[in-house]
Amino acid sequence: MTNEVKCSWKGKMAFESAGLGGTVMLDASEDVGGEGKGVRPKALMLTALAGCTAMDVASLFQKMNAVPDDFRVLIKGELTEEHPKYYDQVTITYQFWGKELKKDKLEKAINLSLTKYCGVTDMFRRFALVKSEIEYFED
Amino acid sequence: MTNEVKCSWKGKMAFESAGLGGTVMLDASEDVGGEGKGVRPKALMLTALAGCTAMDVASLFQKMNAVPDDFRVLIKGELTEEHPKYYDQVTITYQFWGKELKKDKLEKAINLSLTKYCGVTDMFRRFALVKSEIEYFED
Repeated sequence: MTNEVKCSWKGKMAFESAGLGGTVMLDASEDVGGEGKGVRPKALMLTALAGCTAMDVASLFQKMNAVPDDFRVLIKGELTEEHPKYYDQVTITYQFWGKELKKDKLEKAINLSLTKYCGVTDMFRRFALVKSEIEYFED
Repeated sequence: MTNEVKCSWKGKMAFESAGLGGTVMLDASEDVGGEGKGVRPKALMLTALAGCTAMDVASLFQKMNAVPDDFRVLIKGELTEEHPKYYDQVTITYQFWGKELKKDKLEKAINLSLTKYCGVTDMFRRFALVKSEIEYFED
């Protein structure tokens, strides 16, 4: 399968990127000549990682009949100091809210995503140490 | 430097991701249980690549006094067939519009991005063959 995106210059450091499912405004911060009118490209790498594994887990907990009240994925990525700057360590935190959470199924869903399904995690492992953790918030 | 994003479940396969510079709506297509209300995570990987190198080039051609009338970056990414699906080949196409384009400077800007500055290109090279090409549209 071929995926395509088209990224059009909107002056200074701003770009509009059109791709599968919609458009995204990109911009740099003011200290490097941008106006902060959009997301940073490197942050989007983390958004792609969060979204890819989060969708796997959401799909699986719905199929497993283990739906929590709420679900969130946080990503922290550590960038190297020297150019070209890349993420050398990434932590994925899965957070679940609810009463009597089906933790065994939620953990199985996460493991399936991290070991089998999530292509973005697989790509990140080629350049970063990928850690994961789970937090439960039971009322 | 640490970058962080927070990706919150919005039902079915939809998520809102908040990070540096704004929020992005993510969703899967209808054939895999989503409603197509946002961008696909894997497409966002390409958006990050397009935006990162495009911002380098825009920054450099402004500093080099070689600003074109218009500028666009297209990315084509080839996904593998088997899970976990990753990009094994990516083509970056830089397109410039204008009269008497300063091609030597534009090519120098691209080379600096691809070899020195663009961290996202550097990350992609760990899992994909990255090709690049330039197209000029002179009136």
